[in-house]
Formats: sequence, structure tokens, C-alpha cells
Amino acid sequence: MKRSGPDARAISTGATDDPAAGLVTTGDRMQRYAELVVRVGANVQPGQDVVVNGLVEHVEIVRAVVRAAYRAGAQHVVVNYGDLHLRRAAIELGPESEIGWSAPYLLDWIRRWPDENPAVIALAGNPDPELLSDLDPSLVGRADPREIRAAYLESVSGRHVNWTIAAAPNSGWATQVFGEPDVEQLWDAVATATRLDADDPVAAWREHTEGLQARADALNVRAFDAIRFIGPGTELEVGLLAVVPWRCATLETRGGITHVPNLPTEEVFVSPDWRRAEGTVRSTYPLVAAGRKIDGLEVRLEAGKIVDVRADSGAEVIQVQLATDDQAPYLGEVALVDGSSPVKQTGLVFSDTLFDENATCHVAYGGAYAEAVEGGVIEGVNVSNVHTDFMVGGPEVDVDAVTRSGTVVPLLRNDVWQLGE
Amino acid sequence: MKRSGPDARAISTGATDDPAAGLVTTGDRMQRYAELVVRVGANVQPGQDVVVNGLVEHVEIVRAVVRAAYRAGAQHVVVNYGDLHLRRAAIELGPESEIGWSAPYLLDWIRRWPDENPAVIALAGNPDPELLSDLDPSLVGRADPREIRAAYLESVSGRHVNWTIAAAPNSGWATQVFGEPDVEQLWDAVATATRLDADDPVAAWREHTEGLQARADALNVRAFDAIRFIGPGTELEVGLLAVVPWRCATLETRGGITHVPNLPTEEVFVSPDWRRAEGTVRSTYPLVAAGRKIDGLEVRLEAGKIVDVRADSGAEVIQVQLATDDQAPYLGEVALVDGSSPVKQTGLVFSDTLFDENATCHVAYGGAYAEAVEGGVIEGVNVSNVHTDFMVGGPEVDVDAVTRSGTVVPLLRNDVWQLGE
Repeated sequence: MKRSGPDARAISTGATDDPAAGLVTTGDRMQRYAELVVRVGANVQPGQDVVVNGLVEHVEIVRAVVRAAYRAGAQHVVVNYGDLHLRRAAIELGPESEIGWSAPYLLDWIRRWPDENPAVIALAGNPDPELLSDLDPSLVGRADPREIRAAYLESVSGRHVNWTIAAAPNSGWATQVFGEPDVEQLWDAVATATRLDADDPVAAWREHTEGLQARADALNVRAFDAIRFIGPGTELEVGLLAVVPWRCATLETRGGITHVPNLPTEEVFVSPDWRRAEGTVRSTYPLVAAGRKIDGLEVRLEAGKIVDVRADSGAEVIQVQLATDDQAPYLGEVALVDGSSPVKQTGLVFSDTLFDENATCHVAYGGAYAEAVEGGVIEGVNVSNVHTDFMVGGPEVDVDAVTRSGTVVPLLRNDVWQLGE
Repeated sequence: MKRSGPDARAISTGATDDPAAGLVTTGDRMQRYAELVVRVGANVQPGQDVVVNGLVEHVEIVRAVVRAAYRAGAQHVVVNYGDLHLRRAAIELGPESEIGWSAPYLLDWIRRWPDENPAVIALAGNPDPELLSDLDPSLVGRADPREIRAAYLESVSGRHVNWTIAAAPNSGWATQVFGEPDVEQLWDAVATATRLDADDPVAAWREHTEGLQARADALNVRAFDAIRFIGPGTELEVGLLAVVPWRCATLETRGGITHVPNLPTEEVFVSPDWRRAEGTVRSTYPLVAAGRKIDGLEVRLEAGKIVDVRADSGAEVIQVQLATDDQAPYLGEVALVDGSSPVKQTGLVFSDTLFDENATCHVAYGGAYAEAVEGGVIEGVNVSNVHTDFMVGGPEVDVDAVTRSGTVVPLLRNDVWQLGE
């Protein structure tokens, strides 16, 4: 695909010729954050319809985002409030045959997004990652509405929607991070991680995405054949595909809207060759996936496939995810993040993948983002309805690249980026 | 229509042969209340799909209702969380041409309800009736999604869904009632009003609905020709139709599910002749309608039509409602409530129509409930997409019935019911 660098539209209002116009840099933090999400993240266009997906615990930020979306010129803003307690009720008390059911009225609608091309804003920040931990893991692992997820991924992978995922600080999440519901402190960390407190967030984001693009370009010039992670409990080599480039930060829809799909984003990432991964890897952060917190995850891969899963807690839900479809146990992403990441520099474990995956290197099992490849999916790029990132980097984990001739090139040592541009 | 009295299914689980089985009478109040809403109110059937409409401020009760619905055997429970702040944002910041827009994906779904026949549970209890009070009344009055409302009323009037409206105490509403966010005190009042604290709520509801039915029967035997309200600022006569009966408390779907559409419900009501209403009427309670609080409402009717509206505040939103369609300014309901109502006996003004209309007599402008008439709408029964009740009764308001021969029969004096059974 076209590897568009950041341009004025991606980091401005999309509504004027002045890149900085419309981004509120005064006023309260919630409002400035909402503007960042709408105008830099999703890059909502005048006259566009906007979908906001958040939890009931995200209500204040949802309201701020909706107002920012109308200010950006949205025609209609539709909010879908989710509630993890309803998922718990369905698992615990509903008919087992219906777990993972997708409501047809929502499914039909999401399946129309490739024609309707809304902007899609999703809010992360789980208020209670342990909410489902006492339920049968085999049921919890099936509770994600599979058809809705597939339809959603089709719009995302097909570049039909300008989408972003951003954080919604809330007291439950703050308690996970700090041991107490200190939402203000979490807001401070989120503001740091998203460069919200920069004197000029627009300029900061332009500079940041240019830097990540330079890193991706440097990797692409070398055309490496594999990536190696070596550290405590980790010795993993993942093969790369010659035709698949490293990417970063910004995406562009078929209609030409550039957007930043994750706020924060600190990674350069690639869709690896799903047939080539060997070794073991130990997760360096706790993982929240499928409504469970998984501590001490370790997996072993043979010929690309995850063949063994161990964890101090929650391994069962990973097993259920891996059984979702045939390609779920293969890798769909390798991503590199160095220690200069402001997420890393907060010194926090967020227990939220959006943040923790931007603090350090990570890999994902399940499907690759198909938009990473010009002209659609090609051989060796994994296709699955699952996509779960887990963190594998840190100062003790050396990351190397291997050239086609077998030369080993250091990429990260002690969390410091080694490759010149 | 069949005027079904209360039967075992209406006031029990619908799931067993034992009328009292399944209604939790121990456990916390929230859970008992949710069971009452699900099993007495909507009378959810095993295997049925259930729709719950609530505001984000109703989240705790929504969760309890969802759990109760699954316990009653629901197959799927779908929750639509609404948020009045999103309506405010759309009015204030969105394109004016789109105010009142109905999201097509929701509209299409609700239009399928006549075939899908879900149970529908709506939660009332406005956390902030003044939220829209500083906005342009002509925009506020248009902000209700017209097509969704029409589709919803079609399912209700067509007896396609077993529905109920119940209260969701919340701190904003409590502040309206008590001047402080005393939610526990509001729960006490709601429990009193809904007979939740009766030793046997099932028996209490059976007895109550039988009493209301006896009152409706007594009115129907007399075949009155008109109703008169006479009190301070009020002198109103409303004509009745010979073929339209007084009704109460319970409804029955085409599929034979008996349900209690309002919790609480203390009224006997009738769809009057929209062509025959003359005089003036002063509202005896504040009214919350179309997102506004209306104080001191007074209307004048000529030849059935509201021709003049005055209020200390909020008259403009009433004017906008009355302009919605040609039949909106005509009456669609006359309802009688005496002072023995437990809602009345709380001594509170709830500033919520669901409660205040069950404390005293009321009339509604706009459409009648078409299910009040066997075989569909007949001449003289009003049809409109508007239905707004306002309270007109109280100890100072005498209510009389007028026979076809002109004899005046007292119905209410000093809030005491006068008609023998």
C-alpha cells in the first residue's frame, strides 16, 4: 500500500488549509484530549458520520469526543455504549449456545461501513480486567461477538474507515495502575504518553510520526530476512517477507483520509511470514485479553505455530483464542519500540495493551493488518479473526535483525535503538 | 380488545406453573426490583429476546434487569444505553438540518419488532431535566428522533411487544425530588410506589390490578358520555366514545403475553373522542417533557383542539410538540387516579411523568394507545406521533362523569373515589 507519511490533514482539523487551526490548545485537558482524538487520531472530515465505541465507564470522555466530532463538522455522531457487566451476565446466566452471539442489527450496520465510510473512534481503558476471572475460561474465551469482530476487521483491513483507538482514563483502570482510583494521576500519564501537554501537540505529532517513518524507512532499505529476540526466557526468531514493508504511525483510507490508528503510537511494525517463527518467548508485561488478566505468559513456537502456552494465570483464555480458527496460533505482527517512548518513560505498567504495547517491543498472534500490504493479502501474511498483542521487549531483551546473507545487525540494546537512518 | 384481567402469567415468572416461583423476594432491593420489572412488568418469556433501553446514569439498574432477564430465560438481551448529553451536543453543535435524525440501523431494527416480538423494557428517571433548558426551544422540541418514535409506537400500539416502563433511581433525579442526591430515600419512595416492600409483591400486584379492573368495569357499565374536571384554573369537559372502554394496569400482546406496561400504575384510562373537548385546564404538577421542565402549564381547548398554551416556563417546547403533526393538539387520553395511590401517598413530586401521572388524574395530548380499541383505530380515537401526559387532578379538583341523558355523577371529591362498583 501507499506508505503515506504524515501530512497536514493527518495532524490538523481536516477542515481548513491551516494545519494547526481548530485544534484547541487551551481549555480543559479533557477537551484538548478529545480534539486530539478526533482531529489527529480519526481525522474526522466535515460532513462525515462518526461512530464512537466506548464503555459506560467512559461516559465523560465519550461526551467530550462527541462534542469535538461535531465541532470538526461531523454530520451524525452515533455512540455505542458497551458494558462488560452485560457480557458477564450473558456468560453466567444466558444460554451457553448463544455465547459470542452478534446482534444482527449491529452486524448488518457494520457490514455497511465499507459503503458508508464513517470515522470510527474506539475508547480503551478497562475499568475491571478481573471482572470475568472467576468464570469458566472456555466460555469467556468465546464471548467476543465473532461476526461483529470479523465485520469490523474487514472495514479496518480494507481501509474503508478512518479509525483510531484512544484511552479513556477511569477510576477502575487507575486502580489497576496505581493501586488506588487516582484518575488525575492516570490523566497525567495519558497526557504524557499522547504528547497532549506539548506546547504544540500538532507539531509534536508531526515530528513524532516523521521520526517513526524514518525508522521504518531505514529498516526497509536493509530488507532484513528475520528478527531475533534474546533475553531471559526468550529466544525467538521470526522470518520476514521480502515484499512486506515495515510501517508506522499513520494509515490512509481508500478515500485518501490519513489517520493515526492508535493514540499513543510508538511502534514500527511489520506483518511477518507466518510460516517462519521458532523458539520461546516470555511476555515482559501482564496482558489483558478476552476480559482476563494474564500474568507470566510464555509461549513456544515451532514452524511458525504456537505449540505450547504457559502462564501464571489466564492461560486458558489464550488457549481458547488460539482455537478460534486455524491460523490464530501463527504470528501476525512484530513491532519494535525503544526506551525513548514517552509511554515507557512514565515508568508505569498500564495493564492495557494500547499503552503497554507502545512502551516496548511486542508480537501478536492472529491476523496481520492486511492494509500493510499493497493490493491485499499475499502469501505468508497471516489471516485470522484473532489479533492479540503481547509485550516481549525491555532492557534485558536484545533485538537483532538478520540479513538474507546471515549477518546479524543489532537493533535494540538496553532499550536503545541501534540502527542508523 | 380482550380486556384481560391479571392472570398468573402477568404476575409470575411465565416460566413455571407456580405463579410465585422465580420472583426473588429476598436478597437486595435492586435485585428484587429488577425481578419485578422483568417478571411482572414485561413478563419476559423463556426463549424470548429482550431489549432494555436506559440512560448511562441507569447503569446499575440496567445490569440488574439484564441479569433478571437471563434468569427468566431470555435468549438474548440487548441494551441500548442512551445519553441525553449526546442529544444536547447534537442540538448545540451538530447541523441543524439533522436534528431529530433517526439512525437507520436502529430504525430498521425497531421496524422488525412486529415480526421479532421482543420484550421491551424502558427505564425512566431523568438525571437532569434542566439539561437542555438553555438551548433554543424550537430545536429542543424537534430533537426527539421522530421516525424511531413512530416505529416504536407502532410495535406498542400494534400489541407486537410485551413492554414496560419502570423507574431507575439515580442521584440527579433524587436531587430533583429532595433537593439533594439522596438516592436511598428515592429508592424508598420507588419501593413504596411499586409495592416492592409488600410481604408478597406478587399477591399485592394481583390484588391491585384486580381492584383497578373492577373500577374500569364500573365505569364501563355506566357508559358515560363525558368527563368533567372543575377546580382552580380548570373547567374542562372531554367527550367519550360509546365503543371505547376504560382500561387499566395490564395489556396483552397479540401473542397472548399479558404485561404491566407501567410500574407503577394506578390509573384507569380511556381514549376520548378527540373532537369533543372544551374549556381550560391548569396542570397541578410540574411536567418534564421533550427534555425540559415545564412549570405552571395552562391550556385552553376549543372543539377538541388545544388553541392556547401558557406556562411559567417551557411553553415553547409544548408549542413545538403540538406542531409535530395535525392531530398532536387533540387529546388522546383521560386517566383517573384517586388519593389512595401509593405514589400520591409518598407526598412527593417526582418531576417524572411515570410517577406523577400515577399520583393524580391526568390527560394527554397526542395519539391514543390504539390497543385500547378492538380491531384497530376507530373514528374519534386520536392518531398522532406525540403523546404527552400532564397532571390535572388533586384534592381541589372535582371530577364528574356525565351520562348520555345529562345526569352528572361524581367520580372524585377531595381525591376520594365516589363511584360504587
